[in-house]
Amino acid sequence: MPEIPPQAFTQGFAKLVGIEVTRATEDEVHARVAVRPELLQPAGLVDGGVYATIAEDVCSAATFLSVNAERDAVAMGMSNQTSFLRPITQGTVHALAMRRHRGRTTWMWDVEISDDAGHLCAVSRMTIAVRPQRA
Amino acid sequence: MPEIPPQAFTQGFAKLVGIEVTRATEDEVHARVAVRPELLQPAGLVDGGVYATIAEDVCSAATFLSVNAERDAVAMGMSNQTSFLRPITQGTVHALAMRRHRGRTTWMWDVEISDDAGHLCAVSRMTIAVRPQRA
Amino acid sequence: MPEIPPQAFTQGFAKLVGIEVTRATEDEVHARVAVRPELLQPAGLVDGGVYATIAEDVCSAATFLSVNAERDAVAMGMSNQTSFLRPITQGTVHALAMRRHRGRTTWMWDVEISDDAGHLCAVSRMTIAVRPQRA
Amino acid sequence: MPEIPPQAFTQGFAKLVGIEVTRATEDEVHARVAVRPELLQPAGLVDGGVYATIAEDVCSAATFLSVNAERDAVAMGMSNQTSFLRPITQGTVHALAMRRHRGRTTWMWDVEISDDAGHLCAVSRMTIAVRPQRA
Repeated sequence: MPEIPPQAFTQGFAKLVGIEVTRATEDEVHARVAVRPELLQPAGLVDGGVYATIAEDVCSAATFLSVNAERDAVAMGMSNQTSFLRPITQGTVHALAMRRHRGRTTWMWDVEISDDAGHLCAVSRMTIAVRPQRA
Repeated sequence: MPEIPPQAFTQGFAKLVGIEVTRATEDEVHARVAVRPELLQPAGLVDGGVYATIAEDVCSAATFLSVNAERDAVAMGMSNQTSFLRPITQGTVHALAMRRHRGRTTWMWDVEISDDAGHLCAVSRMTIAVRPQRA
Repeated sequence: MPEIPPQAFTQGFAKLVGIEVTRATEDEVHARVAVRPELLQPAGLVDGGVYATIAEDVCSAATFLSVNAERDAVAMGMSNQTSFLRPITQGTVHALAMRRHRGRTTWMWDVEISDDAGHLCAVSRMTIAVRPQRA
Repeated sequence: MPEIPPQAFTQGFAKLVGIEVTRATEDEVHARVAVRPELLQPAGLVDGGVYATIAEDVCSAATFLSVNAERDAVAMGMSNQTSFLRPITQGTVHALAMRRHRGRTTWMWDVEISDDAGHLCAVSRMTIAVRPQRA
């Protein structure tokens, strides 16, 4: 995966959620989402689905960009295991995705979600399937 | 949890995603989301984050409604494990959440996500923490 | 997978744990383990590792037997997610593995672990990788 | 958790598997298991249940020792999510458990399993429930 400039996702669900990638290298991606009312659950906490979505979209995109460039393969989420440790109610959701495994048919990433104070608020383990491009 | 009439979530992330509950009993909840462009990932499939969010919001709400009525407790997502089996690209996403465990401090739900043809497309296992209301 | 007669695993870790398959059809496998002191953790409960192992071995074997017979493929565990709901301290551990997905490259099983009274004590979701036999 | 000298588990399932703790500090535990025939699955790989068991027993014991000393609480496994990345067939299974979260009612650990060459072979995420000692 090439170094890419900071950028927001420009389409689909990642845009609706408001995910911005702020730094990306071969095996780490930093992203963030600004908290706003429509990302909360009824008690005023950032919805757990937002964390799961950040993990899903960042890791899928990073895997896709890499395997597509290298060997014309595609990538799609296979399993998303997100655990919630501490609520976020305002400010910015910060995500750090770290690639842990790069196999022929699956990649695995660990994602850490933190609040503005740097507290670990959620963790996610993403398994991404890598498959040949269909003709 | 009392029988409730079909209804859409009216606030927050569940509203942004467009989750509607169509039937709910004590230990099962049916919900659905109409597929629209802003719920897709770049390849045109419903984003995995949408499935994770449906599971999160339906199970959290159902647990909260029940434990809040019965013993003034609150509920919040603790772990969301979603596996993706088959893509959905259009139509309606159908979810069936089934309560599997009702403990004093945690509830567990299994969620099945299907497409309009009834194919199983994703499964989710939600663990919800139940805690006393803070004073 | 053909119907097979009740049988104990005869080698390796499944034998050490003492797993017996009591009934198996195409998409369900029943198995059991008799509780004995060396399967407990220090507080006298069946060790969580025992439940994870039953799920692992039963689902891997069932998938292997099927894909090997049908298309000379092999199968191996890819992910094992086991949640613990209620302790077992004596008697027999009963497992029911239900196939939920049969894909080209992955199979998924849900496993329910119960005690002698029929209480649900643990659940496991197994993802099994299916791969071509190496030459 | 006090620093403890290297030691093998002396009872129950952890002893049957042959888990030895080689180093332990407040938030990290190193452990190992010597590979032997009765830990393998039929294809000659270390059984996935062995990795799950190492994670389960090391993290449960470390949490128990800490919460029991500090506040007379008990600890037990709540969820064990183990992913398999690369087989081990011989030598020693090395485990490193790192505490990631220390809440009032749950602790979370990440476990990395490696082979003698230092390759990452499995990862496990353990959630441990912390509960008051019953009278």
